[in-house]
Order: sequence, then structure tokens, then C-alpha cells
Amino acid sequence: MSTDASDTDRPAAADDDGEDAPEAYESLLGEYRRIANVRSAGEMLSWDQQVMMPEGGTPARSQQLSTLSSLSHELLTDDAVGDALAELDAIELPAEQAAVVREIQRQYDRAEAVPGELIEEISTTSSEALPAWEEAKAEDDFESFAPYLQKHVDLKREYAEHIDPDRDAYEVLFEEFEPCLSLERAEQILETLRETLVPMIEEIRNADADLATDAFTSLGSYPADDQEALCRDVLSTLGYDWDRGRLDTSSHPFTAGTTFDSRVTTRFDESDPLGSLLSTVHEFGHATYTVGLPDEHYGTPLGEDRDLSVHESQSRLWENHVGRSAAFWEHLLPTFTDHFPHAADVTPREAYEAANQVYENNLIRVEADELTYHLHIIIRFEIERALIAGEMDVEEVPAVWNDKYEEYLGIRPETDAEGCLQDIHWSHGNFGYFPTYSLGSAMAAQLYAAAEADIGADALEAGVREGDFDPLHDWLTENVHRHGARYETNELVEQATGESFTADAFTDYVTEKYGSLYDLDSV
Amino acid sequence: MSTDASDTDRPAAADDDGEDAPEAYESLLGEYRRIANVRSAGEMLSWDQQVMMPEGGTPARSQQLSTLSSLSHELLTDDAVGDALAELDAIELPAEQAAVVREIQRQYDRAEAVPGELIEEISTTSSEALPAWEEAKAEDDFESFAPYLQKHVDLKREYAEHIDPDRDAYEVLFEEFEPCLSLERAEQILETLRETLVPMIEEIRNADADLATDAFTSLGSYPADDQEALCRDVLSTLGYDWDRGRLDTSSHPFTAGTTFDSRVTTRFDESDPLGSLLSTVHEFGHATYTVGLPDEHYGTPLGEDRDLSVHESQSRLWENHVGRSAAFWEHLLPTFTDHFPHAADVTPREAYEAANQVYENNLIRVEADELTYHLHIIIRFEIERALIAGEMDVEEVPAVWNDKYEEYLGIRPETDAEGCLQDIHWSHGNFGYFPTYSLGSAMAAQLYAAAEADIGADALEAGVREGDFDPLHDWLTENVHRHGARYETNELVEQATGESFTADAFTDYVTEKYGSLYDLDSV
Repeated sequence: MSTDASDTDRPAAADDDGEDAPEAYESLLGEYRRIANVRSAGEMLSWDQQVMMPEGGTPARSQQLSTLSSLSHELLTDDAVGDALAELDAIELPAEQAAVVREIQRQYDRAEAVPGELIEEISTTSSEALPAWEEAKAEDDFESFAPYLQKHVDLKREYAEHIDPDRDAYEVLFEEFEPCLSLERAEQILETLRETLVPMIEEIRNADADLATDAFTSLGSYPADDQEALCRDVLSTLGYDWDRGRLDTSSHPFTAGTTFDSRVTTRFDESDPLGSLLSTVHEFGHATYTVGLPDEHYGTPLGEDRDLSVHESQSRLWENHVGRSAAFWEHLLPTFTDHFPHAADVTPREAYEAANQVYENNLIRVEADELTYHLHIIIRFEIERALIAGEMDVEEVPAVWNDKYEEYLGIRPETDAEGCLQDIHWSHGNFGYFPTYSLGSAMAAQLYAAAEADIGADALEAGVREGDFDPLHDWLTENVHRHGARYETNELVEQATGESFTADAFTDYVTEKYGSLYDLDSV
Repeated sequence: MSTDASDTDRPAAADDDGEDAPEAYESLLGEYRRIANVRSAGEMLSWDQQVMMPEGGTPARSQQLSTLSSLSHELLTDDAVGDALAELDAIELPAEQAAVVREIQRQYDRAEAVPGELIEEISTTSSEALPAWEEAKAEDDFESFAPYLQKHVDLKREYAEHIDPDRDAYEVLFEEFEPCLSLERAEQILETLRETLVPMIEEIRNADADLATDAFTSLGSYPADDQEALCRDVLSTLGYDWDRGRLDTSSHPFTAGTTFDSRVTTRFDESDPLGSLLSTVHEFGHATYTVGLPDEHYGTPLGEDRDLSVHESQSRLWENHVGRSAAFWEHLLPTFTDHFPHAADVTPREAYEAANQVYENNLIRVEADELTYHLHIIIRFEIERALIAGEMDVEEVPAVWNDKYEEYLGIRPETDAEGCLQDIHWSHGNFGYFPTYSLGSAMAAQLYAAAEADIGADALEAGVREGDFDPLHDWLTENVHRHGARYETNELVEQATGESFTADAFTDYVTEKYGSLYDLDSV
């Protein structure tokens, strides 16, 4: 499954290295590298803002980021890019070069279609909507946020119309985050998740299982410094390249950087060591993808991540399929108790159960478990899709939100603060982003199953138990990381796994794992 | 002396706020703000590179910085800037606007005069010269570095010729760092320093004074963590705004940032706590200037520092006139001994003597004291001036260097590594930078004397003794910081002190201070 189709079609061609590439191609690459550098400069300044910057720095940072953002837009829509693309359109290019041109063409077409004033207006609306959302959330006052949400809906419909007036606006917006995964496929996957998970979660709620959910939390507190030391050990164990990264703290864990320097953050809750630990493993997955991109293609689409789903597949694979596995806890527990001797009596089985509990009363997406998480996502997806389609009014959001929580999760928010105001995404006008979280999980399951098939499930598990993650790293680098954005999403998954991208592997995985954990009848 | 000339000439005009400014002026400001944002973004990425970046990050960071640097050059030489300047040239503007236009015009003229290929070649030469210099220094092999130095000399002569073929090339290069201070005045000041300091240092060498030079270093070691805690206390005491800054460590102390976020660094030598402490006070001076620039003019020349000399005057003022004063040590010693109880018996007088010792055998600029420092600078100035004038060959540099050290300081380097290869500046092709260090010291003395005259010398000293630095902050903000680059250098000094910029205040200051410390006959 690690076969690279274009390499088997024909022998490696010298011109695939770009050495004999047309002049217009070299010129296009030169322009794109500048764009990529401006973008990654901006990403690093955002990292700094969230991790290092003193509070007073905001006014200058906002202006710097806004300037870099408009410069990268101007560079992308510059005639130098348009002319090179037009010239290359008439030339038959080798596969790698064709992929580079395809990716830049797609970005160019979108950027070029939208008037600068609309971009500006969306940006201004976001700047105003963010503090309005923060206040609405603090005051539990959806009404005060509704006008901003309405404005974002209107602007984003207009935005999509500029890009393609003939297509479903939500589809166009979704492509902002998933440029080459069809919305139809995404919907099928989300539909499968819903059909599988709603009854499974209900069954778990009724199962009355006796899992060791408080194995760690019942033992007292876990000082932040010790958690940090543990997270550093975990990163080293997993194979994090400290020459190309750092670990810091921030209010929301995230990963930022380039293949040469991919930094992760986490945060600490002294009552629960699993939060920082599993979020660190999650961010490790993102970072290891970025670092696994080919150095020699830095600044070009061949050195860039495919899309948000593939990125999320890497973080979820490491978090869920490795970090929440029984084998991993057999490996980790001695290290864990080195840092926290008061947890010395916790058994690997208890740790495994604690790391995989399904929360019955959790209303908050970012605190959700591996199963309920997707229903949080599906609710957002259904609502934002209806909003953009004009099938739902902004005013209806709180009621529809609460009804869906009741229907899918059997719980009902008592306030909008812990309901439809909990996430930041809509205040940025980001419609179409949420689904990528679930798509990433489904893809992680499919990739992990393929890695098991290639490496051998027992050998892979034995490696995890012994702290040898090299076979998994090698498999992911070979099948995912090294390709950058060369293949479109489904093509990448097909080449890596031999199958089109579906939710099947995910449903198999959760059915087996949670069926066994909760002793479910349906399994 | 705090009078603002243009405000006394006429009543405050509404159009001086920019509200009624011509359209071309607003357009020019808009363009310049983008340039300023790109520059400050680059400065922040350089800070990150020196303070936070993992080692592997270099390839991406170099490209990001190079892209931002060429973008700011392109934005500056864009027709939008040129056209606005041309239009404004014909309009009589109020003083503030005229100053803004003058500053941007100067930058535009220089940037526009030099071909992009030459800029590129200088940049490439620097990239190659830097590792060559590092190796030459490590191997004590000047010959291997000589060709790079020669190339830089040739390129910079060509560069100056493009800007103004009719003027002394060194003068043109000096203006890169001192855009509006005449080289003639700078030379007069350096000449006065040389005439004053060479005999004074010789006298000190022969004075056989018994200063408590090892008051701290004889007492054992000073752990880096405790030094850092002390530096934080010192910054807080001096009035550092932690909402607009941070303290970190780096191999060479520096300051970077904007008026909203100006960060300082230091480094620790566990055998000597004075190094980190005084370098922190020095960087505090830089940071407090940057933070003191007017927020409302961020991104325009009115919100930018005047030049390197004025910047250095602020760091030297705080380092030398405050941090090395007897009054400051009376104030600081209790805090110092809180962190280092083993130094509890050191008296304020001993601390003062240790902080002001003159080194008799130091060959290294960055380790020099307040007096010998300037002879290190003058030697470099004389050599680089002769190189650019074509009056000296690159091959002669080591011998001339060593002869001058013998002549001015009575010591002779035994290797080029501790001689003419010690500084990084020439590997960057920075000719004309060194003098700004000494000019800053001379200016610091003149400003401090003026502050003493305005506030009252006794009141100012009493404030320092009690840890009340507000009067000094207020004076510096009023007379220096708030003006940004509104006035040319000498104009700024004249307005602040009532006198043209000379070395007189500096020679008075060191004659009195070191005459008394070393009991010199000449005083």
C-alpha cells in the first residue's frame, strides 16, 4: 500500500525533480515560496501571540498579522502568478509539477474571485464579532451575539457566491478547509458516524458499567511542573524531534510551525493528568506530520500538509489509536508513576479504562470523549449547513442546538454559554471547519487499520508496548507525510490504505473497543 | 528645555494631528505603516530565532526573513510611495507632517538609488562571510576571512556610489545608521574622546589604586537562576512595564520589539553577577525608549526611534549614569544580598568600586569598562574609515589593529581572534555602525547633565538612592522618547539640553568620576 502510483507508472524522470522544468514553472514556484514564507511568518507570530507575547503587545501584533495577511493575498493574486499559471495551462507537465500547479491554481482562482473589499469586511466583522462573542458567552446572552452571526452568514454566502454562484454555498465554504474532499463523501461519513454512535452511546448510558474512571482523579493533585516533565518524557518516547520543536503552555493546545520547526503546546489541570498528557500526544501527531513533510519541498505545495482532515487524522491517530490503547498504558505507566509516585498502585487496565471513559453528561465539545465528540460535531455541522442554506434563522440556533443535544446525546444545555456559544469558530465566520475534526478521526481509523495490515497488528501493538514507535512513524512518513499536497485527499487515502475514504474502519474500531470496554450486547 | 519649538512658533494646529492632511499624505502613511509592520514582524522573528527557536529551524527562518526583507524594500520603492512623495513635495505641510515626509523621503531616496541586484549580492556576501568569519575566529586565521572583508569593502563602496557619487563613501555608509547626524560632528566627538581618554587611562594604569575590584567575584559563585530573579527585581525597580515586555536569555544581550512589546535579554556568568545585572540595566534603557515612543504614532516615523546613537544614549544613560552610580548601589544592595546572602558584607562603596573598575589588560570590546570602551571603538572607526577610503588594504588590518591597541591602550593582542576578528559587524558588511556606540555614551552624558540641571542634581540622586526613578523617566519621555523621529539628531539634543551635541558633558563626567575614584593628579 505504500506504492506511489506515479512512480510505478514510469521510471523516475529527471524533470520530475523540477530541474528541467519550464521557466514559467520556476517563476511560479519562486512566487509561491514568497507567499509560503509570508504565511509561515504570520503563523509564527500567532504562535508568539498565544505563547510568549506580553498582554500589551496586541495592537502592534494585530497590525503586523493583518499586513502579512493582505500581503500574502496580494502576492497570490499578482499578475506574476496569474501569467505563469496561464502559460503552464498549455503545457503537459510531469506528475509532480502538475500537482504543484493544480494546488496553486486552486488557491489563485479562489483568491482572485473574491473582491478585496469583501475580504476586508469579513476581517473587520471577525474583529468585532470576537469580543462580542466573548461577552455574550460570559453573560449567557445569545441575543447580543446574533447580529454578528447573521452578518457572518450573509458575508460568507456572498463570499461563496463570488467563487462559484452555481454551487451549494456550504460546499464552497467547506472547500476553504477541505479543498479536495467532496462534501458528499464528508456527509456520508458524518451520517455513518451519527447512525453508529447515537445508539451506541445510548446503550453505554444504560449499561451501568463499572469502569475505573476515577483511577487517577481520586488520588489527589498533579502539580503542573510534574505534568510538564511527564509530557516532555512522553514526547521524547514517541520520537519528537527536539531539534525541530518545543513544548510550551497556552490556553488552548495547538501546533504551529514548519517542517524545520514544529512547536506544540499544552495546558495543565492539576486535578487530572490525562488532559495534558493526551492533548500533548494529540499535538505530537500534528507536529510529526509537519516535520515529516519533505524538507526539500519547503515553501511549495509538495512540502505542505494536504488539508485539515489529514492533519487531524495524524493527531487523532496518535491520541486515540496509540495514546488511548492498552498497550501504550502498559508502556507508559512506569514513567507516569516515576513522576507521580502517589499513583503507583494504578494498574494498566485501570489507566486504560480511565483514558477511555465515555462521559454521559458532558455538554462541552473540547472535553468530550472519543465517541460523544462526533455528535458534538454533527450538531454544529447540521446547524451551520442549514444557516448557510438559508433554511434556518440565526434566532433559531439556541433552540435547535438544545433539541439536538437532547436527541443525540440525551442531555440538554441549561444555558447558551454551555450550549451554542461555547465555540469560537463561528465568531471567526468559519463555517465548514467543524466537520474536519470528525473526518480526521475516521481517517485515522482507516490509516491505522492499514498500518496494522501492513506491519502486522500484533507486531505494531508489541512495538507500542515496548515503546518502539519507529515502524508506525516509518509507515506514516512513507504513506502520508512525504507526499505533502501532491495527491488529492481521497487519492492519498486510497494509496495508503487500498480503499476509498469511508467511516467503516472507524465504526469497526469503536464497535470492538467500546463493545468490549462496556460489555455491550450489540457487539 | 522641554519646549517643543514648533509648538511655541504657533498654536497647536488641528491639521498637525493629521486630520486635515492631504490625501497623498494619508496614502503615504498607509503605505509606510505596512512597511513598518513588515519590518517589525521581521524583528520579532529575529528575536524568536535568538531566544526561542530550536536549532533545526534555521532554513525556514532564513527564508522567511529574506522574504520579509525584500518585501519591505519593494514596498518602500513602490510607485505608490514615490508618487505620494512627489505630490507632497509641492505642498507646504505643518511641522509634524513635514517631519514624516522628510523621514520617508530619505529612506525612499536611498532604497530607490541602489539596484536590487547589488542588495542581493551584499546579502549573499553576508551569508557567506558570516560562517567564514566564525571559522576564521575559531582558527585564528585572518587570511581566510580577508577575501570576504575585501568583497564587503568593494560592494559597500559601490553601494555608497549609487546613493551619492559626489560624497565621501564612508559618510554615506555612516548615514545608514545615523541618517541625520553629520559625520563631521561625529568625528569631532570621537576625537575629543580619544584626546581625553588615552592620557586618562594611562594615568589610571600608573595610579596603582586599591579599588575593591573583586568585591563580588572573590565570594564564590552566583547561580544563574538567582541572577535572573535579581534581574527581574531590578527591572521592576527601574519601572519596566511587564505588560509590554519580557526578560529572556540569549548568547548576546539585546532588545527587540515595538512600543507595545519591547523585550530584553541577558546572559549569565556564574562567577560574576555584575555582567548580567548591568547588561539588563543597559537593555532596560533601550526598551524604555521604545516603550516611551508615542503609541498613537506606531507604524510612522513619529513613533520610531531617532537613530542608533539616540537609542544607545538611552541604554548608556541607564547603565552608566544610573546603574554604575554610588546612589544606585546604596539602593540596590539590600535587594542584591536578598538574592545572594553570601555577599551580605559588601559595602555600597565596594560595590560602586567593583562596578566601575577600569580594566588594564582587556582586549575585548564587549568586556570593556566605561573608559577603555571608546578606544576599542575609535580603533575600529579609524580602520574602517581608511578601508572604505581606499587608504588601507585589507591585508594591513591585523598589524594596524595591533599597533593601535598598543598606542591607545598599552596592550597588544597576541592573536587575531582576540584582535581584529573579535566582532561580528564587518562580516555583515556594517561599516559606520561602531561609532554609534561611543556617540550614544557622549549623548547620554549630555542628556543626564541636562536632566540634573532641570530636576536638580541632588533631587535626582536622592530619587535614585530611594528607588524613585519617575522624575528621570518623565524627563526622558518629555525630552526624548515622545518625539520619535520628529527632529533630526542634533536638533533633538539641542532642544533637550539647550546645547549642540558635543563630548563636553562626557569628558566632564568621566574626569570627575574617575579622577575621584582613582585619585588622579590631573583632576
